[in-house]
Amino acid sequence: MNDLGTRARAAAGPLSIATPARKNAALGEMASALERNRDAILAANATDMANGEAAGLSAALLDRLKLDPSRIAAMADGIRAIASLEDPVGSVIAEWDRPNGLRIERVRTPLGVIGVIYESRPNVTADAGALCLKAGNAVILRGGSDSAHSSAAIHACLVEGLEKAGLPADAIQRVPVTDRAAVGEMLKGLGGNIDVIVPRGGRSLVERVQNDARVPVFAHLEGICHLYLDRSAESGMALSIAVNAKMRRTGICGAAETLLVDRAAADQLLVPVLQALSEAGCEIRGDAEVRTRFPAALPATEEDWRTEYLDAIISVKLVDGIGGAIDHIGTWSSHHTEAIVAEDAAAVERFFNEIDSAILLHNASTQFADGGEFGMGAEIGIATGKMHARGPVGVEQLTSFKYRVRGTGQIRPV
Amino acid sequence: MNDLGTRARAAAGPLSIATPARKNAALGEMASALERNRDAILAANATDMANGEAAGLSAALLDRLKLDPSRIAAMADGIRAIASLEDPVGSVIAEWDRPNGLRIERVRTPLGVIGVIYESRPNVTADAGALCLKAGNAVILRGGSDSAHSSAAIHACLVEGLEKAGLPADAIQRVPVTDRAAVGEMLKGLGGNIDVIVPRGGRSLVERVQNDARVPVFAHLEGICHLYLDRSAESGMALSIAVNAKMRRTGICGAAETLLVDRAAADQLLVPVLQALSEAGCEIRGDAEVRTRFPAALPATEEDWRTEYLDAIISVKLVDGIGGAIDHIGTWSSHHTEAIVAEDAAAVERFFNEIDSAILLHNASTQFADGGEFGMGAEIGIATGKMHARGPVGVEQLTSFKYRVRGTGQIRPV
Repeated sequence: MNDLGTRARAAAGPLSIATPARKNAALGEMASALERNRDAILAANATDMANGEAAGLSAALLDRLKLDPSRIAAMADGIRAIASLEDPVGSVIAEWDRPNGLRIERVRTPLGVIGVIYESRPNVTADAGALCLKAGNAVILRGGSDSAHSSAAIHACLVEGLEKAGLPADAIQRVPVTDRAAVGEMLKGLGGNIDVIVPRGGRSLVERVQNDARVPVFAHLEGICHLYLDRSAESGMALSIAVNAKMRRTGICGAAETLLVDRAAADQLLVPVLQALSEAGCEIRGDAEVRTRFPAALPATEEDWRTEYLDAIISVKLVDGIGGAIDHIGTWSSHHTEAIVAEDAAAVERFFNEIDSAILLHNASTQFADGGEFGMGAEIGIATGKMHARGPVGVEQLTSFKYRVRGTGQIRPV
Repeated sequence: MNDLGTRARAAAGPLSIATPARKNAALGEMASALERNRDAILAANATDMANGEAAGLSAALLDRLKLDPSRIAAMADGIRAIASLEDPVGSVIAEWDRPNGLRIERVRTPLGVIGVIYESRPNVTADAGALCLKAGNAVILRGGSDSAHSSAAIHACLVEGLEKAGLPADAIQRVPVTDRAAVGEMLKGLGGNIDVIVPRGGRSLVERVQNDARVPVFAHLEGICHLYLDRSAESGMALSIAVNAKMRRTGICGAAETLLVDRAAADQLLVPVLQALSEAGCEIRGDAEVRTRFPAALPATEEDWRTEYLDAIISVKLVDGIGGAIDHIGTWSSHHTEAIVAEDAAAVERFFNEIDSAILLHNASTQFADGGEFGMGAEIGIATGKMHARGPVGVEQLTSFKYRVRGTGQIRPV
């Protein structure tokens, strides 16, 4: 494993100064290789699927594992979309002049070597490899064992792209899934050769990575996203956003888990919104006050306020206006994403200022919490930490920076 | 100790939404309190000095420890200068519109709670407390035991300023130096209540913090700064920058430690530059080639390339042009600061692109590696890591960010 780290670090050097054209050429070759090797990838995936079925994987896991021609085409398109993004490396983030004539620029640089640990989703191999390359980083990929054959076949296409473009093959390495100790060693940083770890997967994976990693981690443990409907909310908008935030997809981290309704607006908002959610197939869990007004609701306990259902269930509570919403969110939020529906500008500004979550939305669905929706092109995940990256982690967030100072002979006075 | 952490976290909430006016009022009150309590601070310092002398502290350590009226005035002025900086919290770093009408802003937020661990320099108490407050962060200060009385007297002034401005006194807490286990507990993060640790001091302190911290660290272990004189260098400039980079102050992290001279320019540059350094009182250590040309030089061994002298000593080597300089720096640099003197734009661009250190300078002294010189107003240190902060760590680097998304009822299509 340490050899993998040394090779990644060695590859990171030439990669960090590779031109945008060369990196994009590699990405283009990767996409073509995925298309050209479609049948081989499907055959490898068929092996994984057969093994998975024999091992009794759930239908949901098998669906995540399964590839078909359209999913392979989507992977190739995704890589081409990453190629079309602006190259972050070398871009000037800020520049200013000093009174002594020095001109200072802060410019983006690659981070170095990224470790990505993920579950059995073959497409992450392609996405993560391409995103890291675009930002000039070497990457070490460790995917789930159930997708081993699929990932290996996809990885071979990525390496083919690197080699055709004249970039080091070690820029995208894959850890053999047979190496059981690999994850633990990656979390320790492979002797200083991994700069950041990105876990992609469910709570137990992220929790292990966050607890055990000795290098920085870009991740979120959970997305307990809140939607607050203020007394000033336009009721049609409140209704459509509530249904979308909860029910568009219930299994994503940006799905709303708790609905907070301003007590002052309970009469006009609460029942129609809960009715609409219920009709859309959502289970309602409310506190005593909510159940009085909407008797079909099941009882919510404190446990509900801390639960990310990732399912068609929502917890509901009446609060005393924007202050009550801020208090509840301050207590229970996972600092991922929260939204307010309101027409009152003062309430919106308090929501924006006083809540410290990665993403805050006004009059929009929490389900926009996504790098693609933010215009970042692609994301490797969403981070809820405050160090370096926060919110969607796209190519920019996979970079660091350095200063370039241009002088004309300046020396520093004593 | 964990109580300290809990109280810091509790203070960080109101602090994060304190107005710039209120934070600046607190800073102004702190500066006034330092001036008003000058005699008490000097008396406390006299106790520390007497204890230090009795304990046999070196003259250098005693000088760092000593306060006098002008040093106290400088501390107060430093705090007022921090008050006059632009408030980073809430400032919009980037903003853009999406095709669906969503408007996205990335705005600065405080980091949370900063732990500062430093040696017996009383002024760090004031500097670090004020900088963290300006960026909206709570801070836990742990200074060296030799400065215990001085730091306590200064800390009392900071708390007075907080209280007079109506900010929580727990925003700036000081760990009693009698608590020997405190540093270890801070490095573990006080139960999730410290977000980042900043060590200020010598190599052994920084090394311990970097090795043992379980939270992110902003620091540099050493500054092995290189100065490269290219064949295209203007010789007068090369000479003055070399002398300034090494000799202006030899004990700071931005002082040059290794001089690399383009072999093609050795005839015209090497001897005059070494002569000037030597006349300025610098010991020259050269490789065999350098010693042939400049026999007064002592022999340099591999150990010299990895040594931060922090003294009037420089190691010198001839290299094969810009490529040779990049190779040497890539092997031995501590990624802090490097400078090139050259008129050849292509050499400068290679230097800027291919070297990955926090600060790169062209035709300017390495001694400009300083937050004040960068126009940041003040710095809490210089970081050589690539995560979050890099180079001088000023108020901006003590912040994180969040996203504010403004919509008009947008829901995400299925």
